[in-house]
Amino acid sequence: MASDFVPKNRDFAQAVRESFGRQGALTSIGAVMEDLVPGSCRIRLPFSERVSQQQGFFHGGIIATVADSAGGYAAMTLTAAGAEVLTVEYKINFLAPAEAPAILAAGRVVRAGRTLSVTWVEVDMVGSDGSLRPCAILQQTIMTVQPRPVVV
Amino acid sequence: MASDFVPKNRDFAQAVRESFGRQGALTSIGAVMEDLVPGSCRIRLPFSERVSQQQGFFHGGIIATVADSAGGYAAMTLTAAGAEVLTVEYKINFLAPAEAPAILAAGRVVRAGRTLSVTWVEVDMVGSDGSLRPCAILQQTIMTVQPRPVVV
Amino acid sequence: MASDFVPKNRDFAQAVRESFGRQGALTSIGAVMEDLVPGSCRIRLPFSERVSQQQGFFHGGIIATVADSAGGYAAMTLTAAGAEVLTVEYKINFLAPAEAPAILAAGRVVRAGRTLSVTWVEVDMVGSDGSLRPCAILQQTIMTVQPRPVVV
Amino acid sequence: MASDFVPKNRDFAQAVRESFGRQGALTSIGAVMEDLVPGSCRIRLPFSERVSQQQGFFHGGIIATVADSAGGYAAMTLTAAGAEVLTVEYKINFLAPAEAPAILAAGRVVRAGRTLSVTWVEVDMVGSDGSLRPCAILQQTIMTVQPRPVVV
Repeated sequence: MASDFVPKNRDFAQAVRESFGRQGALTSIGAVMEDLVPGSCRIRLPFSERVSQQQGFFHGGIIATVADSAGGYAAMTLTAAGAEVLTVEYKINFLAPAEAPAILAAGRVVRAGRTLSVTWVEVDMVGSDGSLRPCAILQQTIMTVQPRPVVV
Repeated sequence: MASDFVPKNRDFAQAVRESFGRQGALTSIGAVMEDLVPGSCRIRLPFSERVSQQQGFFHGGIIATVADSAGGYAAMTLTAAGAEVLTVEYKINFLAPAEAPAILAAGRVVRAGRTLSVTWVEVDMVGSDGSLRPCAILQQTIMTVQPRPVVV
Repeated sequence: MASDFVPKNRDFAQAVRESFGRQGALTSIGAVMEDLVPGSCRIRLPFSERVSQQQGFFHGGIIATVADSAGGYAAMTLTAAGAEVLTVEYKINFLAPAEAPAILAAGRVVRAGRTLSVTWVEVDMVGSDGSLRPCAILQQTIMTVQPRPVVV
Repeated sequence: MASDFVPKNRDFAQAVRESFGRQGALTSIGAVMEDLVPGSCRIRLPFSERVSQQQGFFHGGIIATVADSAGGYAAMTLTAAGAEVLTVEYKINFLAPAEAPAILAAGRVVRAGRTLSVTWVEVDMVGSDGSLRPCAILQQTIMTVQPRPVVV
């Protein structure tokens, strides 16, 4: 994961990983943030009963949640210190039933704006041999909420 | 909830409610299917810790999952007996932080096709006085998988 | 078309209609702005060769353009005097081949925010008897660019 | 533009280019189909008054139409001989005002299914020095209409 983006916050990785750690909904189901570079973020989720639907595949709502987070955190790598990101909207296509030992959501920033950013996320099924096959793609708009200026 | 749609399956309500009952992911978080008429479906979800994010609002992934289901089941009211529905894709806009005693997702079919249906879902926050305020809207494409002909 | 919205600009109708009049791309193909109330806008487009594709239906790109405009102008009815609206993104589902004497795009605001608004647009085929049948739906995010403060 | 896709129709390029040639709406505004390989398609559109809006940028409706076509034709490279493609739906994000000598829409297939395919399209502004800067991205669902079997 190379990157042409220059982060505004030198400590972007720490800020993103702390925010991710506070997301109980993700960490409690076993999601792990892997690569994190300016403009990109990858989140891996191993299969378990907690993330499955009745046929034993990954649940669509879980896939969307992980993809949404990968895009949002990719955007957050490029925001100023103290800023927060909110999902304005996304669109997701499901490409195949997600039956695999794990899924990997790779989000990247397509446009980094002061207020609005646009990201694109590919979610792959990770085979036991490490092979990747796409199971969903997501296109997303993220809003940055700038930190309030501190008035002394 | 009036309806101009004529269901193909006389027992559509039973088929939909049985499918909903098997969706452990929804029932385990307290989701309840309320109104169900041809072409429309409403699902209510009370607030609880299980469906919240760190600030105490409904989690976006939960909102999307409930909305996705309301649209899919609205479409399923119009399918032939034995058919199944799959989400091809959806697009969701988040309108406001969902802070309320409950949310109510109302899905309705805009186009009912043999293979593809299109639905639109509005998710409202339900106040303690029963008032409704929108927190998300979702537009969705659903695929119907027809039952296989039985060969004797 | 009733409305619960209170416009910020008393002269919203004039502002919207002037902007529409400057949109050469729409007026040159015969589009007409019909109803305009706070939060809603309807644009009608009669059929002609200029708006058709090779099979004699309305062209999908034309349908999207008219729907995009109906949503954007619905949002503009609620902005402050001097503000402009930009389309951030939209998602459109095509429901049926649009073969009719005219189409009618009805846009309405679902969320009116200071910076971001969300609209939903239904496009109907208008029969020679005035009947309406849906041919497309569009869900859209609009950004308001506030007028710059004038410094004397 | 490399490709891992194996086309079903040996003469896919001829079929796609013939279909494109019949699209009067595109060719009449100067659109040219450039690269075409299995699973991918690029369409270039030079700037002219016919494709501009009032401020002298490419019109959003034109950008969407070219992107929609690039995705649809990318999907068509993988269909059987005689099949046709229809746009089910798409979602487009506008990233920047498109002010350039030309735009280039690059569509690629993410999922090729018998009935439904999913594509992703990036639209770039092409500078006079050949540089590319993104101005829109589009995510799309395409339906393949198989040719009817000929009964003698």
